[in-house]
Amino acid sequence: MENHSSLSRRTILRRSAAIPAASIALGTAAHAQSSSGLPPAVPESMRTPGGPFLNPPYGLPSEFEKGVVRVLPAGNNPFPTGSRTPLQSLHGIITPNGLFFERHHAGVPKINPDHHRLMVHGMVKRPLILSMEDLMRFPSVSKIHFLECSGNSSSQYTGPSGKTAQEIHGLLSCVEWTGVKLSTILAEVGVDPKAKWILAEGTDAAAMTRSIPMNLAMGDAMLAYAQNGEKLRPEQGYPLRLFLPGIEGNMSIKWLRRLKIGDKPFYTREETSKYTDLQPDGSSFEFTFLMDVKSVILTPSGGQKITKGFHEITGVAWTGYGRVKAVDISTDGGKTWRQSVLQEPVLSKALTRFRFPWQWDGNPVIIQSRAIDEAGNVQPIRKKIIDKRGTNQIYHYNAIQSWKISETGEVTNVHA
Amino acid sequence: MENHSSLSRRTILRRSAAIPAASIALGTAAHAQSSSGLPPAVPESMRTPGGPFLNPPYGLPSEFEKGVVRVLPAGNNPFPTGSRTPLQSLHGIITPNGLFFERHHAGVPKINPDHHRLMVHGMVKRPLILSMEDLMRFPSVSKIHFLECSGNSSSQYTGPSGKTAQEIHGLLSCVEWTGVKLSTILAEVGVDPKAKWILAEGTDAAAMTRSIPMNLAMGDAMLAYAQNGEKLRPEQGYPLRLFLPGIEGNMSIKWLRRLKIGDKPFYTREETSKYTDLQPDGSSFEFTFLMDVKSVILTPSGGQKITKGFHEITGVAWTGYGRVKAVDISTDGGKTWRQSVLQEPVLSKALTRFRFPWQWDGNPVIIQSRAIDEAGNVQPIRKKIIDKRGTNQIYHYNAIQSWKISETGEVTNVHA
Repeated sequence: MENHSSLSRRTILRRSAAIPAASIALGTAAHAQSSSGLPPAVPESMRTPGGPFLNPPYGLPSEFEKGVVRVLPAGNNPFPTGSRTPLQSLHGIITPNGLFFERHHAGVPKINPDHHRLMVHGMVKRPLILSMEDLMRFPSVSKIHFLECSGNSSSQYTGPSGKTAQEIHGLLSCVEWTGVKLSTILAEVGVDPKAKWILAEGTDAAAMTRSIPMNLAMGDAMLAYAQNGEKLRPEQGYPLRLFLPGIEGNMSIKWLRRLKIGDKPFYTREETSKYTDLQPDGSSFEFTFLMDVKSVILTPSGGQKITKGFHEITGVAWTGYGRVKAVDISTDGGKTWRQSVLQEPVLSKALTRFRFPWQWDGNPVIIQSRAIDEAGNVQPIRKKIIDKRGTNQIYHYNAIQSWKISETGEVTNVHA
Repeated sequence: MENHSSLSRRTILRRSAAIPAASIALGTAAHAQSSSGLPPAVPESMRTPGGPFLNPPYGLPSEFEKGVVRVLPAGNNPFPTGSRTPLQSLHGIITPNGLFFERHHAGVPKINPDHHRLMVHGMVKRPLILSMEDLMRFPSVSKIHFLECSGNSSSQYTGPSGKTAQEIHGLLSCVEWTGVKLSTILAEVGVDPKAKWILAEGTDAAAMTRSIPMNLAMGDAMLAYAQNGEKLRPEQGYPLRLFLPGIEGNMSIKWLRRLKIGDKPFYTREETSKYTDLQPDGSSFEFTFLMDVKSVILTPSGGQKITKGFHEITGVAWTGYGRVKAVDISTDGGKTWRQSVLQEPVLSKALTRFRFPWQWDGNPVIIQSRAIDEAGNVQPIRKKIIDKRGTNQIYHYNAIQSWKISETGEVTNVHA
């Protein structure tokens, strides 16, 4: 393995420049077409004025991108649990708000922000009920962070089911969050020094509730009211959600209405019947919050078809432990690994985009990415996870994703 | 002026914590309401299941946010030139794609990406015609950068016209761009060493064209195909635009179809009749590309009404020269200045969010922000600009914005 020290922007530029121009396999037509020296025909769009301003006032993607949408999981589940982000169609690290994955426990409530209140009570000196206007007067903070459902990629505990990155890993998004640090509000109410846990409750019909340990609450937890500059989307908890960077998604309670400060966990339905990790011996781990180091190659990825020649292998890596330190790439099914280039800036608990120049010679191969984080965690192979946890568990699957490329260039999801 | 060294996140946290909790002027009702210890009534949204998934598959803002949209400039101009971003309603540094400002010269063309081609010709060894598929196989790069129209804020050369930050300064947005570095494509075609300029041409009915000097082209210029993760929006140049970080917006040619390499500027219509800076003596400066250091307070800002007590003064700063180094705040019309806290990470040629805790005592005041960049540029007062440039010019206005707060808390746009 190469040295995993972080790479400067200068290094990225040098590496890109180092790819011989001739090695980039353009269709030969590209050069041939221009041999006459004449420009292509002037298109109709240059002869007729185009569409007007504010069409619509809140803009939308091109009609040619109508296939780039969130989807439900494959199959005919009458009670779908989440819609998924089309990771394989995205670029960079930011997820546009319209494509942020969904996970609800009783649908999306419609909440008028003028009527919404957050109550903070329990083991505190000064219980509080805050309107949104009250909350937005507090000092605020903005941070780019990923959010991942702990059930993301769970289908891979068993068969290699799911075809595309979206179907397999799409319960994952990354935006710039803005809100008030939870610690600011806890200072305002005056928390009893003996308090150790906080119950967070949503305004949905599931009354979704989780117990948050005080150390998470006093860290980088925030009461978020905006994503990518604008107010939260309804399906992301409008007008207010808890947001816990690096922690499994269900803890970041949406449509937040209540924080009760206590001295022990509250053992709500969603931390007893669910969101515990069933082990091979029948016991369960509870309160397994932190999201492990993980990565996935998005180009090329499942469902795509590639041709011989140059490709930039690219994808995203992330970890709840802080910064991604390196992402290694194998193009021989894990026998050898080479380091990719990470797009700067590499932000803590955010998606990190990696890039790796590659020539495909047309022979069948298996490509893989392996992320390493600044805490020293290394993304494991699938066998290591299954040997340890068995296949009863459905949460926190973070094994290396293998994509097989066939002789004809078809990319499929395999275990390797 | 205080020391302008960049502030760590730790410093931000310490500063926030340093605000005495009691100083945050919540409505007194907030504490009183909870005195009974009983929770507020359980809302209807907790009794009835909420709305379904994928409603719609490409998500939209809450219906309660329908006022947060782009707008045309005030007045009845039959030929509006741009729609504007609602800066005063946004948070953080990312502009959601639906609210990115518009500036077109002949409307928005509808372009099928399968038919779109980019031609690169002129003083090159290997002229090329590239499809979108060709382009997307090249090594790519993602960067968060602002884009500002050089005519932004131009109404302030004369009267203090315009009411809100959107109306005055809304030709400004910031997203994560993804594309291919222009230098990568120039290496592919083999540029003649004697070449000095590049003509860039759009596929719109204006055949919008500008001359780009080679040093900009070989720097951080990119051929962008995505913004905030997804493909460019139609009004931002779908499927391909030139993007020049830190440079006046009109140079980042949208719907890009042609790059012609030459040895001198091409003197197109848009760099002779327009986009030159008319001086008091009747001469004009041409090729004034770089956007100067600038900032604006967004909360509180024009059109808002505030109440006595604690407020976080917050807004954005930016510069075409690289990173913002500091933003000073005055709450006495420019007599004294204190340094704000910059939200980390501070990125080059990106919006930078500043925050400053403030108690308003109810007396009339004028609040101002003054940005300083890493090149040492200091945002000037209005008088300094007018004394030097006169009022014939309409481009590159970057003076300090003054907001007056009246006894009743109304915030208005003034010259001070």
